[in-house]
Amino acid sequence: MSELKGACIIGQSGGPSSVINASAYGAIKTALESNTITRVLGALHGIKGVLDDDLIDMSKEDPEELALMMHTPSSALGSCRYKLKDPDEDETDYLRILEIFKKYDVRYFFYNGGNDSMDTCNKISKFMLRNGYECRCMGIPKTIDNDLAGTDHCPGFASAAKYIATSVMEVYHDSRVYDTGMITIVECMGRHAGWLTAAAALAGVKGNGPDLIYLPEVDFDLDKFTASVKKIYEAQKKCLVVVSEGIHDKDGTFIAEYASKNLAKDSFGHSQLGGTAAFLANYIKEQTGAKVRGIELSLLQRCAAHCASKTDIEESFSAGKAAVENAVAGITDKMVGFERGTDANGNYVCNIKLFDLTIVANTEKKVPLEWINETGDGVNQGFIDYALPLIQGQTDLKYEDGLPRFVKLKKVKA
Amino acid sequence: MSELKGACIIGQSGGPSSVINASAYGAIKTALESNTITRVLGALHGIKGVLDDDLIDMSKEDPEELALMMHTPSSALGSCRYKLKDPDEDETDYLRILEIFKKYDVRYFFYNGGNDSMDTCNKISKFMLRNGYECRCMGIPKTIDNDLAGTDHCPGFASAAKYIATSVMEVYHDSRVYDTGMITIVECMGRHAGWLTAAAALAGVKGNGPDLIYLPEVDFDLDKFTASVKKIYEAQKKCLVVVSEGIHDKDGTFIAEYASKNLAKDSFGHSQLGGTAAFLANYIKEQTGAKVRGIELSLLQRCAAHCASKTDIEESFSAGKAAVENAVAGITDKMVGFERGTDANGNYVCNIKLFDLTIVANTEKKVPLEWINETGDGVNQGFIDYALPLIQGQTDLKYEDGLPRFVKLKKVKA
Repeated sequence: MSELKGACIIGQSGGPSSVINASAYGAIKTALESNTITRVLGALHGIKGVLDDDLIDMSKEDPEELALMMHTPSSALGSCRYKLKDPDEDETDYLRILEIFKKYDVRYFFYNGGNDSMDTCNKISKFMLRNGYECRCMGIPKTIDNDLAGTDHCPGFASAAKYIATSVMEVYHDSRVYDTGMITIVECMGRHAGWLTAAAALAGVKGNGPDLIYLPEVDFDLDKFTASVKKIYEAQKKCLVVVSEGIHDKDGTFIAEYASKNLAKDSFGHSQLGGTAAFLANYIKEQTGAKVRGIELSLLQRCAAHCASKTDIEESFSAGKAAVENAVAGITDKMVGFERGTDANGNYVCNIKLFDLTIVANTEKKVPLEWINETGDGVNQGFIDYALPLIQGQTDLKYEDGLPRFVKLKKVKA
Repeated sequence: MSELKGACIIGQSGGPSSVINASAYGAIKTALESNTITRVLGALHGIKGVLDDDLIDMSKEDPEELALMMHTPSSALGSCRYKLKDPDEDETDYLRILEIFKKYDVRYFFYNGGNDSMDTCNKISKFMLRNGYECRCMGIPKTIDNDLAGTDHCPGFASAAKYIATSVMEVYHDSRVYDTGMITIVECMGRHAGWLTAAAALAGVKGNGPDLIYLPEVDFDLDKFTASVKKIYEAQKKCLVVVSEGIHDKDGTFIAEYASKNLAKDSFGHSQLGGTAAFLANYIKEQTGAKVRGIELSLLQRCAAHCASKTDIEESFSAGKAAVENAVAGITDKMVGFERGTDANGNYVCNIKLFDLTIVANTEKKVPLEWINETGDGVNQGFIDYALPLIQGQTDLKYEDGLPRFVKLKKVKA
């Protein structure tokens, strides 16, 4: 493979995470240090930044400040939820992207996001291939939802998992403090895949886990749920439940919809969920007369950089780095992912593996049913063994004035 | 003052915090090391543990394990919300407490809690004085609400404040990631005092603060609020608001009640609040058509030991320690509190000061009006200067398996 000199664009897309910037930094830093990549451009708000010619020159950032991306939550370059049309129906966007690529001699395109972002990356990659414009396109995965196919796990999942497990441990202590009864229902993100909700089970490793866990992989039955809560509450006067926002009944109706049918849609056609814990808390209060509290972890779980996993931060960085290294070496049309291995002592190691973009785009990986218990209200050791290595180590986030010191980019226009 | 040999009881009461155990540990450790205190007893679930003769022997705990109380959230001895009757109306409880004190030769009583707990401690202290039973009673303050009179600030406030400021910084980043509009409304605890909500302003020190902050110290006007949010949203497409659960209109009606009038009461007669952010988020969504998210920090803000302030942890420990040292030296009927000073370099120092229990019991200290801006939707530098020194330093919480290692007491019955 001959050396391909040219500029690169890196963009971020989809819902942010605590470590998506670590991935972007891994790509940016490696690209800035490359002799093959002539210019490193950041697209503001993902593909919209390309379409709008809204690009920044990453070499203009102070290297020390840029390094703070390692520990800054959310997407430092800005994100979008812009869905590219099928090129067979409408080529407008693709022709514009090609125009911008030519304008800046862009020969490398790195897109950092979840399923929908891999779909975008895949479509651009295929369009450029079909049109004979040489541009190496690489996806850098990100999703707290952990639902990308192929890869063992996704950058971002472990930090959200660590935050959830830690918070559940703390809430466990808090909700057991009185000698009076208390039922607590915690809601985690996850439309169709229950990875984040399952992560609450990690709190059980320390003996502070939930009594019941409900994932969207299993149909939810309100009566069965109520009976289970009542039984535990009667026995121990406390009950701690963790549910996924996406739990639904056997007819596919979301439990959150039980309270309200008036739901907004985002541009990818998913229902805007929320309120599952609030609905269940009210319902269980009526059914038991107990003191009940619903806690929705909301945005907190995907931006809690102060509680990020060191393992996740380092792996996220390595994914961005590997995307650039592989592209420079001649690889294109792939997503960087992870393969789990063990070292000589049997300890967890994470190896980089490349996956075809076509395979990962728009496929959702769910929690395997064999990791869910028979009663459908908990996970077993299989899940713990999978998730525990991922949350090891604490962030070395820099503090100033007792508060996190997050990155402030100058964003100098290209 | 002659030396008073005898046992001590320590109990915890009221809502827990991230550092109430650091205070209890300060008292327990100092008492265990004392030559004057003959036995150190822990009352399970506060004063109810005394009434029920449900006491544990703290000397039976492993010292290394006990030391983990420094970083364990919630009340390790258990809490209660039991309100003692006025002794002029009903002496039953007091006579029972005296009986227990005599049974174990209790000459020291340390009670660790907020306003209501100081009221309990005060009532017991006065009863023992009137009845000629020599028992030195000391209050050790705790409240994330920071509303105890006299003391410059309360153990527990700063850790909750640090968590709130950190989380608001993270949510700030997350809620600005898209190029589309977004209004975010975060709800903090605080029935009558807005200290915790004001703490969100600390995020502004790093440039990631809320646009609007509403405290219960100022009457809330829904129309004025809506106009302010609309103005900011129209100008910058983003608006981040932080509100106290206890905000109310000029007639005293809680905004949370606007959505529901069906409120539970706890045994101290406070309304059970919650749902302010949810109500306002729905209302603003209707009024603006914007994407709006309501986030209630709920229990998370009072148990997030993983994000505790080192300053707060150390001060909390010192409050417990000072209670025992002063009691052994002959002091009784006081609450340990803090007085703010400066060192030779003009830096913040925290000095122990004793306050009369009668004064602190059942008085609420609110955010001074001169720290609230003229439009009643923010706080000024006066508050920042007050709060910033308190959140300095990070916890050195011990981790195991990537998760916090919290204390597990054996709880050996006395």
